[in-house]
Amino acid sequence: MSSEIVVIPQGGVASVRGFLAGAVRAGIKEGVDRLDLGILYSQQPCAAAGVFTSNRVKAAPILLCQKHLADGRAQAIVANSGCANACTGEDGLRQAYEMAELTAAKLAIQPEDVLVASTGVIGSFLPMDRVRSAIGEIVLSSKGGDDLARAIMTTDTVPKQIAVRFDCQGSRYTVGGVAKGAGMIHPHLATMLCFLTTDAPAGQGFLDAALRRAVDVSFNMITIDGDSSTNDMVVVLANGLAAGEPLDAQHPAAEAFCDALAQVCTYLAKAICRDAEGATKLIEVRVEGAASDADARLAARGVAGSLLVKTAVYGEDLNWGRILAALGGSGADMSEDKTTLYLGGVCLYRSGRPLDYDERAARAALAGAEVELRLELGLGEGVATAWGCDITEEYVRLNSAYTT
Amino acid sequence: MSSEIVVIPQGGVASVRGFLAGAVRAGIKEGVDRLDLGILYSQQPCAAAGVFTSNRVKAAPILLCQKHLADGRAQAIVANSGCANACTGEDGLRQAYEMAELTAAKLAIQPEDVLVASTGVIGSFLPMDRVRSAIGEIVLSSKGGDDLARAIMTTDTVPKQIAVRFDCQGSRYTVGGVAKGAGMIHPHLATMLCFLTTDAPAGQGFLDAALRRAVDVSFNMITIDGDSSTNDMVVVLANGLAAGEPLDAQHPAAEAFCDALAQVCTYLAKAICRDAEGATKLIEVRVEGAASDADARLAARGVAGSLLVKTAVYGEDLNWGRILAALGGSGADMSEDKTTLYLGGVCLYRSGRPLDYDERAARAALAGAEVELRLELGLGEGVATAWGCDITEEYVRLNSAYTT
Repeated sequence: MSSEIVVIPQGGVASVRGFLAGAVRAGIKEGVDRLDLGILYSQQPCAAAGVFTSNRVKAAPILLCQKHLADGRAQAIVANSGCANACTGEDGLRQAYEMAELTAAKLAIQPEDVLVASTGVIGSFLPMDRVRSAIGEIVLSSKGGDDLARAIMTTDTVPKQIAVRFDCQGSRYTVGGVAKGAGMIHPHLATMLCFLTTDAPAGQGFLDAALRRAVDVSFNMITIDGDSSTNDMVVVLANGLAAGEPLDAQHPAAEAFCDALAQVCTYLAKAICRDAEGATKLIEVRVEGAASDADARLAARGVAGSLLVKTAVYGEDLNWGRILAALGGSGADMSEDKTTLYLGGVCLYRSGRPLDYDERAARAALAGAEVELRLELGLGEGVATAWGCDITEEYVRLNSAYTT
Repeated sequence: MSSEIVVIPQGGVASVRGFLAGAVRAGIKEGVDRLDLGILYSQQPCAAAGVFTSNRVKAAPILLCQKHLADGRAQAIVANSGCANACTGEDGLRQAYEMAELTAAKLAIQPEDVLVASTGVIGSFLPMDRVRSAIGEIVLSSKGGDDLARAIMTTDTVPKQIAVRFDCQGSRYTVGGVAKGAGMIHPHLATMLCFLTTDAPAGQGFLDAALRRAVDVSFNMITIDGDSSTNDMVVVLANGLAAGEPLDAQHPAAEAFCDALAQVCTYLAKAICRDAEGATKLIEVRVEGAASDADARLAARGVAGSLLVKTAVYGEDLNWGRILAALGGSGADMSEDKTTLYLGGVCLYRSGRPLDYDERAARAALAGAEVELRLELGLGEGVATAWGCDITEEYVRLNSAYTT
């Protein structure tokens, strides 16, 4: 396969042919002057797949999306920040449906082909008068991806978007993605929105499987604060404008497509960790030699999710015992005397014993913006990588005064 | 039953007849001038039971205790702060055994009747030269409980101890307890030490069952930071000096004894939450109407353990949606439209809808040193109470520079 995956400079969801985007200031959160309502639109109907929060409290837009995706088709997404429309009961559900209807009317498509995404404070209602007029004002274009990326930000400090392309047997395929998320982030989806676009002519079954595979190695492997949100969603829209046969598992471009989707998701997932509330460092935890991949995932997420590991990394404190304690408490099978721990390139612990390591090199490995931990469990073939971030005083400050 | 449980003023582990305690400054942690090595001793051999960390990484003293408790008997505990003796391999295990041997020689008892407890930094070795001479210097007395309580403190700011008594059919029974813990605290035991003493003539089987029951409603229902330690232990020593028949489940004092043990454990567990690293508030989460007690426990601990709930409580921020999100993500069965949420006496959310509550009253309920949340799930008879604390900038500061 010559299917090299190339990153498109300044790419995003609207870098994929046939997709348009745009956003406006609707003033959803009182007194906040920023883009807060956007639309992503495909000129062609799309095969679509989604993955949604596993929280039992599901926001109104999540319930709507699950219903509207039942037929595996969608053509537009309307998204807002400033209000999660969660814990809002029947009235909130009516608001979500009205957002879909208003968007459908604007685009002259069916309401059932519109998905809705909301993020922000839980437990308040949308100011529908402002939403109604704002939807009418949104201008869609192939340059609107950046505005959409900004409109879904809450405590995010930077927009998060990417597009990649690859060629296979004379066809060029493009995959774009946009995401938001900076807190309430935990394995199995938490307040995190991600919209993916592609021109690949993917069948719905294949698209759904490719999405689940990509999410499993990316968004399901990041953790910021262990809190799982009510509004998470990752949705992919495939409009089929790339030439060639429909993609299924046997298609020559299938593997490259899955890789491209996973690459886009992993880029966005890591971007979320880097931009996590108050964070100063991205933490990458690689686990090898676990009894199974499932155990490796448990172990990697357990270490990346440990508050004591996160605070030690923040303080650039060589308190590596916390890493082993988090591993031991993760639920994954492990044995101290078979475990080896590396910080960057420095081996700190091997086979049940602390090593007399080079402290200067270890400090240097903690000093950068990315900290790499590697755990070899010596039990089997299981591997996994998880990402997290440090937890800082700023995280506490941001989250002790979020609604006020 | 007239078995009223009375708290003994300034009571502790050595308030129980036949128990002596004492501590010295051994200088285990370089440059720290405080009590750091203590002994708890019963003049009579005791029936003993213990509950230990579920972390797969178990400190050397945990491995020793599990072995020494196999016969259900013990007579002394030697405990240190400043070094956890965890992740120290064979050499660490030898150090733990030497501590037991030195203590046994001092007290003229069998090494197998000595338990060892350590708390502090993971991954460093004990300075055995200092430990050896310090064990010889410890003076034991019935007034030494407070010194022992101080010797096991790490980031704790106050010693934690209590004793209670009750009378039953002419016999007086006493239960004392001492604990430490301020971080790495999470359901299923985390760095937390607790020693319990009683003069009740309890059979080992009964004692073990009573201890597990008490720990389940107390230490297993608190959470500070979600990190589970390598060194947790709760041990009870029963010397049988109270008059009367041996306690078993049919004994008239059995229920009062279990209640007294649970009361002592709950007092100490709440004291740990109140004194949690950087904490300003104790959070009590009561769950009622869950589908089962197991679900209620899951829900209560999920809410008490949510970092976003903790930071909102710290900021006295009425961001109650986070409580529902934490409940929904806890794994417990729940349905939004059957759920009711109270903050103190104020109902914020009922049957799937936010209420128009009295904001001043709600703010007042958040303003105190103890914040009470009550969730009625409307599904069944399951109840549970969990305790946590807020997470503050000070927690981050303390934990980003703990070893240095």
